[in-house]
Amino acid sequence: MIIGFIGFGKVAQNLAGIIESDDINFITSAESRSPETVENIKNSNVEVLDTFRQVASRSDILISATSPKNALDAARKYGKYAKGIYLDLNNISPDTTSEINKAVGNLVDGAIIGKIDSDNPTLYLSGRSASELLFLNEFIQTKVISDEIGVASRLKLLRSAYTKTLSALLIESVEIARSNALEDEFFETLALTEGENFKEKSLSRIENTLNSSKRKSEELEEIIDYFDENDLTMVKAALKKLSR
Amino acid sequence: MIIGFIGFGKVAQNLAGIIESDDINFITSAESRSPETVENIKNSNVEVLDTFRQVASRSDILISATSPKNALDAARKYGKYAKGIYLDLNNISPDTTSEINKAVGNLVDGAIIGKIDSDNPTLYLSGRSASELLFLNEFIQTKVISDEIGVASRLKLLRSAYTKTLSALLIESVEIARSNALEDEFFETLALTEGENFKEKSLSRIENTLNSSKRKSEELEEIIDYFDENDLTMVKAALKKLSR
Repeated sequence: MIIGFIGFGKVAQNLAGIIESDDINFITSAESRSPETVENIKNSNVEVLDTFRQVASRSDILISATSPKNALDAARKYGKYAKGIYLDLNNISPDTTSEINKAVGNLVDGAIIGKIDSDNPTLYLSGRSASELLFLNEFIQTKVISDEIGVASRLKLLRSAYTKTLSALLIESVEIARSNALEDEFFETLALTEGENFKEKSLSRIENTLNSSKRKSEELEEIIDYFDENDLTMVKAALKKLSR
Repeated sequence: MIIGFIGFGKVAQNLAGIIESDDINFITSAESRSPETVENIKNSNVEVLDTFRQVASRSDILISATSPKNALDAARKYGKYAKGIYLDLNNISPDTTSEINKAVGNLVDGAIIGKIDSDNPTLYLSGRSASELLFLNEFIQTKVISDEIGVASRLKLLRSAYTKTLSALLIESVEIARSNALEDEFFETLALTEGENFKEKSLSRIENTLNSSKRKSEELEEIIDYFDENDLTMVKAALKKLSR
């Protein structure tokens, strides 16, 4: 079996490392790639073809793991040459997934939950051919949640609504704690019920959110736009909080 | 040493059970108490005096563990008779604590974090005599956080701002998940990063909040009132969410 990659960043590199089997060969292309990516490809067990068009036409599974911004373009350019399953793993909205579905014959919508380089990433899949990818369970926890395209990205968006709003709540709580000179005690009293690593986890979430608050705000806008039939009082407050 | 209780609900009952020492005797009164409380007193190792005035004047440590509503009244009635430390353990605001301080000679402000009948409740104390209560560490984890009255109740309020706002976020997230038929998957994907008991804990928080949403809303109003110099975007959204 041949698995091809469009994009060779963290996700693709990790997958090529995790999926170890004599029956599986990886291919990608260095076409128009950055010197850094070319170097990463050289350091991996992946065969390099001249063009992504070739990669698409030779892959049994073509994995798009580029950037959210490029996901639709990549699908429009190479989707029509894909002979097998086109697995989109980009962090994109359900609406973008629908657009990609128009450009691709046999799309599977995938979302990796948990960091790909952590102990327990899980791959959620939706789409009519999703179950054909369950063999990946041997290498990474893999779950099919629907045969409908877009459900995996909807789940990721929902999860993201929670975690981003939680980050906004943490930012506000720590602000209040600091201004009352009770930051250590705040973390300490919450660790009693939220788990011992509450402080470390919370500070990392806050830092991560503040370091990319513009991108997080855009993602919150996308969430608000997508789930607009629901009451989004908390999510909207998070957007307001991040824009302060 | 004599420890007296004003109020003999869950907190007092548990403390009388936890604090086991040959050197310590407990007293309380059945004065104007409900039949249920009188029964609870009978079933415990506590000596019963005729009046709370007697309890106050004989106790080395007088513990007020009645209800938030009655805390100030109790302090005004019996505080002046307390010969030793008056330890207020009611779930009251820092402002009420200040009022109580005017009626009581030697107040210590206490907050129990974590359920009193759980594995690891912690008693936070503030006030100039707080450190005299550190002997309680033998029976329950006890921490002095300040010699200033009101800091323990401020910490409890701060913690409560976080947990109540989190409950509002959970309510909203589960609403969105349900309307997208993704409730199980929502909990499952969050358990990967928030801990295995995330679903159970979240559902219990949601139920607890919805079952007493009026009281929770009042507590949020108190929080907003008290921390009004801070940006309270998220806490205010929680109040709005709970009143829907």
